[in-house]
Amino acid sequence: MDNPILQSLWDRKSTRVFLEKPITKEAQEIILGAAMQAPTAGNQMLYTILQISDQNLKERLAETCDHQPFIAKAPLVLVFLADFQRWYDAFVFAGCNPRLPAEGDLMLAVADACIAAQNSVVAAQSLGIGSCYIGDILEQVEIHRELLDLPDYVMPAAMVVYGYPTDQQQNRKKPERFAPAYTVQENRYHTFSASEHEKWFCERAEREKQTDFSYPSYMDAFCKRKYLSAFSREMSRSVAVYLEKFKHS
Amino acid sequence: MDNPILQSLWDRKSTRVFLEKPITKEAQEIILGAAMQAPTAGNQMLYTILQISDQNLKERLAETCDHQPFIAKAPLVLVFLADFQRWYDAFVFAGCNPRLPAEGDLMLAVADACIAAQNSVVAAQSLGIGSCYIGDILEQVEIHRELLDLPDYVMPAAMVVYGYPTDQQQNRKKPERFAPAYTVQENRYHTFSASEHEKWFCERAEREKQTDFSYPSYMDAFCKRKYLSAFSREMSRSVAVYLEKFKHS
Repeated sequence: MDNPILQSLWDRKSTRVFLEKPITKEAQEIILGAAMQAPTAGNQMLYTILQISDQNLKERLAETCDHQPFIAKAPLVLVFLADFQRWYDAFVFAGCNPRLPAEGDLMLAVADACIAAQNSVVAAQSLGIGSCYIGDILEQVEIHRELLDLPDYVMPAAMVVYGYPTDQQQNRKKPERFAPAYTVQENRYHTFSASEHEKWFCERAEREKQTDFSYPSYMDAFCKRKYLSAFSREMSRSVAVYLEKFKHS
Repeated sequence: MDNPILQSLWDRKSTRVFLEKPITKEAQEIILGAAMQAPTAGNQMLYTILQISDQNLKERLAETCDHQPFIAKAPLVLVFLADFQRWYDAFVFAGCNPRLPAEGDLMLAVADACIAAQNSVVAAQSLGIGSCYIGDILEQVEIHRELLDLPDYVMPAAMVVYGYPTDQQQNRKKPERFAPAYTVQENRYHTFSASEHEKWFCERAEREKQTDFSYPSYMDAFCKRKYLSAFSREMSRSVAVYLEKFKHS
């Protein structure tokens, strides 16, 4: 690929083990700057980026985000907050008599926050800095609201940790994605049959060279680990609590 | 800036007027491929990308998405659907006895979809192809469910339209973002005072060289146009309807 941007998008994979090498202030500003240059609905920037510099707070988040110690070792930790509080407050102070923020406002803010986060990830990658999204920031609403002083109309959309990858992380294989035929559809949504699902999982496993792949065992284990697990249920409980504040449509 | 990736992220701005120049099949595949190479929670790709190739459907969406005719003129239109239906169905068919998809599952899928969408935007930009997010795809739930055959556990997260920019679009000034001090905070959320809000809006207006900027008039007009408007209320109504299906935490 002779397009360095595409090459970088294809090369990027998550980094969970970091060199003990700090990210310079200049690089931090580039990563944050790239986030803020991302597309944003009506140029509103419906997010606040919390830079977690306090080591104690990093260690707390490493615990509250499903016990992942590598979070505390990341030289840069950013929480992308979907933020309708800032605009709501500004409207109130300016005497605009706004309605209360509702479900669509939150969803637009979540989109804005994730779009900004991904720009920061692409920018980091261009500087040789790895990254990893931590979806678990959506859990533990009561603890995170208190730890991060979150007001009512703010919800974490994503956390990203950044650092220089170790050689092992740099050289590990990027996981194969599902085939385009399973992910891209034309004009209307197509619901797959049992055998179609199985076909596309097996096709991916083949590309992963998983010679001993058993579809039923894989699905059973994956469902238990990622969907029936405590962290997954906790995430939905917490998101429902955040949503309570936005029930104003 | 001598880093072409950063340069591209900084240069990118929305394109709403397109040249009558098609996007080749090869370029379409790169744009879709870049989306699918984006980070995704547990390598699950919790989204389906609908490529809208049917001109009648484009024209309908141009109407249902707040009457924006340029949507129908875009050579490439992609709807990024937050999709938990696919995994839920696969779990059911594989006999995993899954719980019903809930609020956190939807939010993780929205994040996945938006992260993928932004990779596609960055890839398009690297090919000289402009893009514009259409948040209005979150509106008109009943119509969009029918038009796009959306099942219960699917919600549009973003629509993006792509095309080669006209000279005017290419040369227009990118809107100034708010200052980092208004958008990036350290460790804990800070709630701004009335005068702080005003300061950062005025500071942005200065960079925009809006010499006749009046904060109260601007806020009043903006609030009416973007927040108290029919499309904004409709977005929250629709999102609340989508959310109904995910009330299972």
